[in-house]
This record gives sequence, C-alpha cells and structure tokens, in this order.
Amino acid sequence: LALSKAELKDIQILLSKKGRKEHGLFLAEGVRLLEEAFRHKFPPQQLIICEDVINDRGKALVSRGYDLKIPVTAVPAKQFESLTDTENPQGLVGVFRLPSSCLDKLFHPNYRKLLVCEDISDPGNLGTLIRSAVAFEFDLIILIGTTAEPFSPKVVRSTAGAVFGAKIAQTTWVEVKELIHHFRIGIIGTDIHGVDSMRKMITVASKGPFMLAIGSESRGLTTEILDQSKVRVHIDHSENVESLNAAVAGSILMRELYESERKREKR
Amino acid sequence: LALSKAELKDIQILLSKKGRKEHGLFLAEGVRLLEEAFRHKFPPQQLIICEDVINDRGKALVSRGYDLKIPVTAVPAKQFESLTDTENPQGLVGVFRLPSSCLDKLFHPNYRKLLVCEDISDPGNLGTLIRSAVAFEFDLIILIGTTAEPFSPKVVRSTAGAVFGAKIAQTTWVEVKELIHHFRIGIIGTDIHGVDSMRKMITVASKGPFMLAIGSESRGLTTEILDQSKVRVHIDHSENVESLNAAVAGSILMRELYESERKREKR
Repeated sequence: LALSKAELKDIQILLSKKGRKEHGLFLAEGVRLLEEAFRHKFPPQQLIICEDVINDRGKALVSRGYDLKIPVTAVPAKQFESLTDTENPQGLVGVFRLPSSCLDKLFHPNYRKLLVCEDISDPGNLGTLIRSAVAFEFDLIILIGTTAEPFSPKVVRSTAGAVFGAKIAQTTWVEVKELIHHFRIGIIGTDIHGVDSMRKMITVASKGPFMLAIGSESRGLTTEILDQSKVRVHIDHSENVESLNAAVAGSILMRELYESERKREKR
Repeated sequence: LALSKAELKDIQILLSKKGRKEHGLFLAEGVRLLEEAFRHKFPPQQLIICEDVINDRGKALVSRGYDLKIPVTAVPAKQFESLTDTENPQGLVGVFRLPSSCLDKLFHPNYRKLLVCEDISDPGNLGTLIRSAVAFEFDLIILIGTTAEPFSPKVVRSTAGAVFGAKIAQTTWVEVKELIHHFRIGIIGTDIHGVDSMRKMITVASKGPFMLAIGSESRGLTTEILDQSKVRVHIDHSENVESLNAAVAGSILMRELYESERKREKR
C-alpha cells in the first residue's frame, strides 16, 4: 500500500518538463481530467490513488481502470501530496504516455483547420486555446517559439481534459512554412493593428485549408508570420482596452470560423 | 532611499485581501498596468520604484507621477522584491485607492449592459472577464457569491489594466434581484444545457436593459438565477468538450451583444 522511494521519485519527476521528456510520460490529476481521458479513449498507464480522500466518482474511475487492467497503486496521503501541485487534491492521479508531437506524423493532407500558437507562454492561455480548438473542431494545434509545454500540470488542467482529444505538434516556424507551401494552406494572422474584418477572414477560410495564427500576448505575431498571412484580422472593440486576452481573441475567431463552416455545410 | 520597517509593512499587507480592505488600498505592478492606470485617469496615491531594474518606459511613468505631485519612493532591490508576487519585477509598483464597490453608488438608471459574475473563483478568469467587459463596453460588472476579490494582484494583472476603466460592484444576489425588478432589467443566463440560441439572446438584449450572467466554471449558474432568466443561452460547439472556459464563453457572448448593438446603431 505504498510506492518505494525509487518508484515515487520516478513519478514526482513527471512534474518537471525534463522528467516528462526523459520518461515519455505525463500526469493528469483529479476526477474530471481522468473522466475526460477515458471518454477520449486515452487511458492512463497507471493510476495512483489516495483512499483517504477519493470520492465515489473517483472510485468509479478506479473500477474502469481495473476493467482495462491498468495498474492501480494506493498510497498514503503524504506520498500522494508529493505527486500533486493542486491545493485540494481529489486522491486520483493518472500517469499517461506522452503522445507524439511530431508535425509530420500528426499532419494529414485532409486537414482543413489548423491552429498555430506562437510564443503563448502563459499555461492558462495555452490550455484555454487547446480547449477551444477541440470545441470548435480544429484538426491540429501547432506550437512554435516560446509557447508553454502542453503536458505540464497547469496546461493540462486548463484544457479541462481537452488535451486528451487534441492533436498537438511542437515544432518550428521553418517546418510549418514548408507544410504551408506544400499544401497551399492560407495563413490567417491575428493582428491588433490589422485592417481586415472577420468577413475577409471567412472568405479566406472558405477557399481551402487554413491556419489561424495566434501570437504572444505582449507582442503579437512575429513579422515573418504576419508577412505571409493572407489576412491580418482584428476583432473590433472599444478603445478602452488596448487588446483582448490572447486566448479570448483566438477563441472568438475559432468560433467564427466554426460557425461559418456550419452555415456553408447547411446550404 | 528606503522605506522604514513600518512603512514597508503597511504596503506588504496590501498583497492580502484583509490588508486591502483595512487600508482601502490596492497594488498594481509593472509598466503596462501603470500606463493603463494613467490612461484611465486613475493615478496612484504613491509610486514605489527600484532604480536597479526600472526601464525607460518606467522612468517616463515616474515623471508623470512627479507632474501630478504623486510621492515617489525609491527602495533597494530587497525591499522591492518583498512587495511583488511576480517573477520578473519591472521595478515599479503603484499604490491605489480602492474604488467604491457599492452597487447603489455605482449603478445609474441609464445603464443598459450589465455583467454578473457568480462564483467565478479563478482570478485569471475573473480578470479576463473584466477585460472583455471593458472591451465590449459593458456599463457595470457585478460580482456575487464566491467570486474572487477583484483587486488582488492576480486579478489586476489578468485584466491587463482594464480594472482601471471598469465599474465593479461587489454585492449579493438579493440586492441584484431588487435592482432587476425595479429597473425591469432582463437576465440573459448562460447554461451549457440551455436551448436558446444567440439570436434569441440578441432579441432580449434589443428590448431594453439587460444583465448577462456567467456562472461558476464547474457548476454553472445557480438555479435561482437560471429560473429568473429570460433566455438560457448556450454556445454551439462539438461534443468533444463538455464546455468552454467560463471567461471564453462570457467573452464570446459579450462580443455578440456588442456587435448586435453596433448593427442596430448603424441602421
């Protein structure tokens, strides 16, 4: 009813980026995230539970784990707390295999809706963008520049489990550029100083595969990406704020693109 | 060139909710927040700077402070660090007077667009909602239930300075209910299980003053508010996620209401 010191260390290390990379594993904690993992058919390799605090929804997940022959280890509260970075742990942590983040492996020529996140360093913003991308049926999310690591506990939590239903590539602009040229993908750049309306964005999107690009909250997209964009779209708002939150702006545009696609399909 | 121990303590205490309430003051840190404060004509009572790290934009703010006869105190790096909760402080903290949060004082019968946040406990989500509410010209933001305290350093930072341009009331549903009945304000409830479309929401909004209500991320709005709502609006999205982030959902709806108002005005 406990992990050995070495076993514990092997899991604790997954709270760090280096540890996740070395072991090819990541952690997701709590009832809601684990439920989403099962729903997206992305079961954990291992479940670690703390029987003192686990509730009925948690216990139901443990029995689903048993059904799938997933190893379940019960540990004392002190060990459990060393595996979590949340304030009110729910007594349930899953250890998951890191999915491939290789652009070539993840990309499929049929994909029509791509999202690029450049220099999105805030974990909450990245997680929210991943959640909205899955909600609005984007085929692939591509992370470049200094964007946060998508399998850190904070990002995973901010996705509310959408990370288990998302395809996420981590690569460089150079690789993305090749893909764009080869498959004639139109870039939709976001730009608070842009002059293009949503209508123009939707026109570009209706003509073929596209890639919506969201840039860093403080500086926006780099010039290189803006220069290659077919539209530089902005969202109208009052001058009382300089800009919208990056995750909000990205989500508003993703929703517009989703709605316009649904309208086209209905015709 | 330093604060006395007692003076330092009087400012440090503003990092806590209790301290802010007792002293009627709050802190905002960094070049961008201070620039927004001046832009919104909400100058600080006092500026505390660390000359080792302050940059040219920061220095420009300090001279604006001098012009307005605001006391400026330069402190050593060690003292400065004890006043900030950010990782890379920019050497500039403003001490601001807490504005009134009294609903009766803040409400004006001419107001047409109100936002209610119920049980929004995540500081990042609350800050983002305040930022979007200012961007989309909501007249008043009303916080009820277990919503986070809007003048904590995290919320202030998440507003990106919009907090200086917002009217924010902190009150209870009972008080809000009286206001609604007295001024015949229509409630637009958000509800992931709602059946009403955006179109119906816009119809309600076009008929008179309205109040958009956003509920807790995990549980949504309480039944009491939903029962009094004229519409229970939901945002269409794929079933791959259970819901959108609360700040994203609120911002999408605020933008729709802003756009529909602009269209009506153009006619």
